[in-house]
Amino acid sequence: MKKTKVTFGVDIGGTNTVMGIVDRTGNIIRKESIPTNAMDPAADLFERLFNKCSDCFSLLKEEYELVGIGIGAPNANYYKGIIENPPNLNWGMVDVISIVKKYYDIPVALTNDANAAALGEMKFGVARGMKNFIQITLGTGLGSGIIINGELLYGSDGFAGEMGHTTVIPEGRKCGCGKRGCLETYASAPGIKRTVFELLSQSSDKSILRDFSYNEMTAKKIFDAALTGDKIAQVAFKFTGKILGQAMADAVAYLSPEAFVLFGGLAQSGDMLLFHVKKYLESNLLSIWKGKIKILLSGLPEGDAAVLGASALIWHELESKSL
Amino acid sequence: MKKTKVTFGVDIGGTNTVMGIVDRTGNIIRKESIPTNAMDPAADLFERLFNKCSDCFSLLKEEYELVGIGIGAPNANYYKGIIENPPNLNWGMVDVISIVKKYYDIPVALTNDANAAALGEMKFGVARGMKNFIQITLGTGLGSGIIINGELLYGSDGFAGEMGHTTVIPEGRKCGCGKRGCLETYASAPGIKRTVFELLSQSSDKSILRDFSYNEMTAKKIFDAALTGDKIAQVAFKFTGKILGQAMADAVAYLSPEAFVLFGGLAQSGDMLLFHVKKYLESNLLSIWKGKIKILLSGLPEGDAAVLGASALIWHELESKSL
Repeated sequence: MKKTKVTFGVDIGGTNTVMGIVDRTGNIIRKESIPTNAMDPAADLFERLFNKCSDCFSLLKEEYELVGIGIGAPNANYYKGIIENPPNLNWGMVDVISIVKKYYDIPVALTNDANAAALGEMKFGVARGMKNFIQITLGTGLGSGIIINGELLYGSDGFAGEMGHTTVIPEGRKCGCGKRGCLETYASAPGIKRTVFELLSQSSDKSILRDFSYNEMTAKKIFDAALTGDKIAQVAFKFTGKILGQAMADAVAYLSPEAFVLFGGLAQSGDMLLFHVKKYLESNLLSIWKGKIKILLSGLPEGDAAVLGASALIWHELESKSL
Repeated sequence: MKKTKVTFGVDIGGTNTVMGIVDRTGNIIRKESIPTNAMDPAADLFERLFNKCSDCFSLLKEEYELVGIGIGAPNANYYKGIIENPPNLNWGMVDVISIVKKYYDIPVALTNDANAAALGEMKFGVARGMKNFIQITLGTGLGSGIIINGELLYGSDGFAGEMGHTTVIPEGRKCGCGKRGCLETYASAPGIKRTVFELLSQSSDKSILRDFSYNEMTAKKIFDAALTGDKIAQVAFKFTGKILGQAMADAVAYLSPEAFVLFGGLAQSGDMLLFHVKKYLESNLLSIWKGKIKILLSGLPEGDAAVLGASALIWHELESKSL
């Protein structure tokens, strides 16, 4: 019997590391999660991870052939195969490819989580068949992965695609990166929370949201309030959509994609956010692009997208570069 | 005797159309210029142009072999081979490649003038050997051509690279494109002129520039005034450099180029502008890019750059695509 080819898709997060055994169609045959243990060395994580992989794959060996390993991680550099000073992980510089090659002598590729997410959409998601699009993850930050001519845009050093750190309001909000006015200080889960607190400070409108502390406030609470007609919450969504739509118009001017794919909790707010995003994207486009740029919502399950993205990375390598 | 291979590089401008016979090293063997006659049909221009080409090339046939034709023009679409509603030309849609093929049965390529300029720098200018850079022309507008992995960035429809129409000041200056706050309303020859008039209206500082009408004012006069220590002129250069530097930092976040190449009259202002561009580029970069992005001044002669760019386009096609 011919075995079905599969890959390991590995997503390294600050809290958990998730590994999926994924076939070419995006079917997850098995998924495992282990604590990352952020304070321990990277080698320990991979030892624990691959011990677990080895155990679970031994049961599947009759049916499946492992052909590659894709890894998504914060601050990962595709060109160098290393992770550089990841936030929330006490790792410094880690040569991931070399560590993995000790366990498996098969093709291995590494990229940052936002890039992996874009590949996941291209291989398994709503961007199947597209050659030029931008994937935006609205989460604790704003991550972006840019696909040009069917390939990830890496730029000269592997770090291209940092749309979250373009400036949308000169001298605006302080960002974790040290700059001011970055897109992700407005268009992200913490961003809309900051907007709500700004609005609460400036208006005297009644709002359910006046009952929550900063630490209690979440994007979900703001969404729920907006659904009940809370004005502050609705204005917060409008402002967030406006800023994001304007920034997306700039991205179009640089890159001329056919679509944006939105992912993450805030994107799931649907038309509460999208109505405004579309309006301000359109009104800020050059006439050659008006009415032509699609905005799509990711259909990948929140819990699987990262593993699918990591798997898509190595499938893409195997297919486009004949590794 | 083996003939030297040459190309025609054709630059179609609103007033004149210039054609150069250019070898692989960027040596212009012959250059001809004819009036574009903007109100006449495109077919007339090409008939006059190629009659002239035929005359002048007949004298060179013994020594040179014509291997391709590259054309740069405003609103030219590389993918379609057409020029679409060019500003200042009464043409509508023109299928340039088909017209040229009536005269010469050799490879022909068309792109917009800003893209041609970027290829000119890559083949013949300061960007030789670079794979990732952004060329910016500071002229009557701000044109940009983006090179990624040694290829022009065209995006999904051929129109990528419109950096001049990214928004730098929300609700800012009215732009010719219909939007507000576009980069080119600040960073261009008319942009710095608008800045001077804004400064003249806001301050009561003495300035040589108070003697010129809006129609008399030029970027050159502002530069000369700045050299003599005129404060208004110097502040105008500082403001222009700040806006441009900030926008370039956003371009880095998207594209991660290794360099910018600046071209055009305003770029020739040297450190009067560049000092500020560098300062504000650096202060707006993410830490991973600080100190790493080069700013280069084009060394191509102003009068030859467009023809060299158009020639570079077809040399690039011939070499990378084995036409």
